[in-house]
Amino acid sequence: MRLSVGDLDDLSLGGVFLATGGGGDPYVSYLLAQQALAASDGVDLISADTLDDDAFVATIGGVGAPSVSLELLPSIGDPLKALRAFEAHVGRSVDALVAFEVGGGNSLVPLIAAAQSGLPVIDGDGMGRALPEAQMMTFPIAGISPTPALAIDYEGNAAMFDSGSAQTYERHIRAVTQAMGGMIIAVEHPMTGEALKSAVVRGTLSFSIDIGRILRERRGLAPQLLPALGAAFEQSQYGALVELYTGKVVDYASAIVGGYDVGKATLAPFDGDGASLTIDIRNEYLVARIGDHILASVPDLITVLDYETGTPINAERLRFGQRVTVVGVGCPDYYRTARALEVVAPRCFGFDFDYVPIEQRV
Amino acid sequence: MRLSVGDLDDLSLGGVFLATGGGGDPYVSYLLAQQALAASDGVDLISADTLDDDAFVATIGGVGAPSVSLELLPSIGDPLKALRAFEAHVGRSVDALVAFEVGGGNSLVPLIAAAQSGLPVIDGDGMGRALPEAQMMTFPIAGISPTPALAIDYEGNAAMFDSGSAQTYERHIRAVTQAMGGMIIAVEHPMTGEALKSAVVRGTLSFSIDIGRILRERRGLAPQLLPALGAAFEQSQYGALVELYTGKVVDYASAIVGGYDVGKATLAPFDGDGASLTIDIRNEYLVARIGDHILASVPDLITVLDYETGTPINAERLRFGQRVTVVGVGCPDYYRTARALEVVAPRCFGFDFDYVPIEQRV
Repeated sequence: MRLSVGDLDDLSLGGVFLATGGGGDPYVSYLLAQQALAASDGVDLISADTLDDDAFVATIGGVGAPSVSLELLPSIGDPLKALRAFEAHVGRSVDALVAFEVGGGNSLVPLIAAAQSGLPVIDGDGMGRALPEAQMMTFPIAGISPTPALAIDYEGNAAMFDSGSAQTYERHIRAVTQAMGGMIIAVEHPMTGEALKSAVVRGTLSFSIDIGRILRERRGLAPQLLPALGAAFEQSQYGALVELYTGKVVDYASAIVGGYDVGKATLAPFDGDGASLTIDIRNEYLVARIGDHILASVPDLITVLDYETGTPINAERLRFGQRVTVVGVGCPDYYRTARALEVVAPRCFGFDFDYVPIEQRV
Repeated sequence: MRLSVGDLDDLSLGGVFLATGGGGDPYVSYLLAQQALAASDGVDLISADTLDDDAFVATIGGVGAPSVSLELLPSIGDPLKALRAFEAHVGRSVDALVAFEVGGGNSLVPLIAAAQSGLPVIDGDGMGRALPEAQMMTFPIAGISPTPALAIDYEGNAAMFDSGSAQTYERHIRAVTQAMGGMIIAVEHPMTGEALKSAVVRGTLSFSIDIGRILRERRGLAPQLLPALGAAFEQSQYGALVELYTGKVVDYASAIVGGYDVGKATLAPFDGDGASLTIDIRNEYLVARIGDHILASVPDLITVLDYETGTPINAERLRFGQRVTVVGVGCPDYYRTARALEVVAPRCFGFDFDYVPIEQRV
């Protein structure tokens, strides 16, 4: 599939849906991708399975607190600059790029570098959603080291890492990200095509376009929207979509703690009567609950949609008074394995309960 | 001059004196240097001026809060591991090593790597004393970039930097140092022999040995010690030594703030009667004052000596009740130039007064 400017609307809209509150605001990345794609012949979105086993692939994306990306804006040359610096550092040319995660911003960053370099982008990513920490990606879970990795900031300063574990790498790059202003572009997880195939969550960019198209075509048509989304998810690797709550944002607090957006949102019914829903946030929406009753938790997806338009809303865009519908979707099976749950279960985020798949909770 | 185990006592003792409270505790570094030198044929301590102009030199030392080095102990293989990783990163072999700064620990780190690699060590350093931040070294003041630079932690994790300025580099490596546990070994300032000669503070390691010998030979002989030290400094690039205060430590507070030891010590007369002296600390002793009257300030040297033995005491070793004599010494002329004062004057540390050379203050 050849991606062009016309695909960006749906890709970024669907990316925000799958990014479950995180993944970066798409606005500026969208403008940059639009400009980069318009100046190119388009970007090849290729299946991981068409890659040579000995191809050399790397992930690329933004790292930081999503709220920072609203103010510290990326430049159109940053992704390619990061890619070239990474290639010089490892002494090898990259054959294809892959997204860290699906996200409004982070689905688009690889496209910007790809449009400028002529490289293809893998239809897939390392999370199938967005998650806040490097060790939560499918690649390190499968044993692929995130390093050698390289980060550049808005000034072109670079930091490179060789780390013994993904957790260590996460700690180090997060510290540098904070020192670099809170948001950087990183190139990570150099790997072979063979390694990529063992761990990539397949088809998530084209699926984002599908979801984005549904969101666009049924914008403002609430009665049709959720059934249409539900049908699309049902046939995908994610599974059933569940409506969790509808109400208005009555409380929202967020702070940058340790380089992440950490916060909580509270929703109440429109008429103010009835139980309220709380959502815990660490870049992404992690847990949705009513009182002690948990409706959905990480690694399953929790997404907040504007009640009127159905547009998904990132955590850093939540505001008092917004009228929203909260939905949950199962995560790809990969994240339900014991090995993956060691790094993405609710306890990894400090919550005192075990993961129960959303279809068993509802 | 060939350094051997027998020189280490004086070298580290004199290094603590010149390090003006910082530079790292020498105890473990001393044991490591002793072992490394004993297993070698010694280390050549060479004059910068004997170096070829096109030789390739790098600085090496510990970065972090000195208080951390009391608990997060270096391993004997760390300096060489950092050197080799740096050489692999820049693709070039280092011809000679030079210390960041004179310090109990940081004078010895280059010797450990040199004993194990056979490289010579320059008789000199990048500060002529110790100072807390990278941009305060003579090398960046002379326009030599601290990067490419490499840091390794106790586990062997590495971070590398390419930074647009020394201030930026300082911010980034300090953040990584904190994430790496608070103390790392860094290799920085790759430069030619010609560049080194333009900026190195000459002769500071051999001068440390001279000062260390005086301290050792006159240990406990207070009436002879200060005159002997004074005579040695008078003939050196530092100038006159001034006795500032004698008393006991009645208050000492220190916290790790932003990766530095930040604190304050208060001294009172032995009989409790009379004016007290306060010393401001940021890794190093920065300002000594009685009330509003400033006796000495950075970049001049302020050193605290045990009252009984004359042994210099690092800031992280200050304790309530210690009986001490505080002395001040002028800094090398290099630090009194307008260009150097732009980065090392008291205002660079947040103090609201200008630098006045110690000989004009007393």
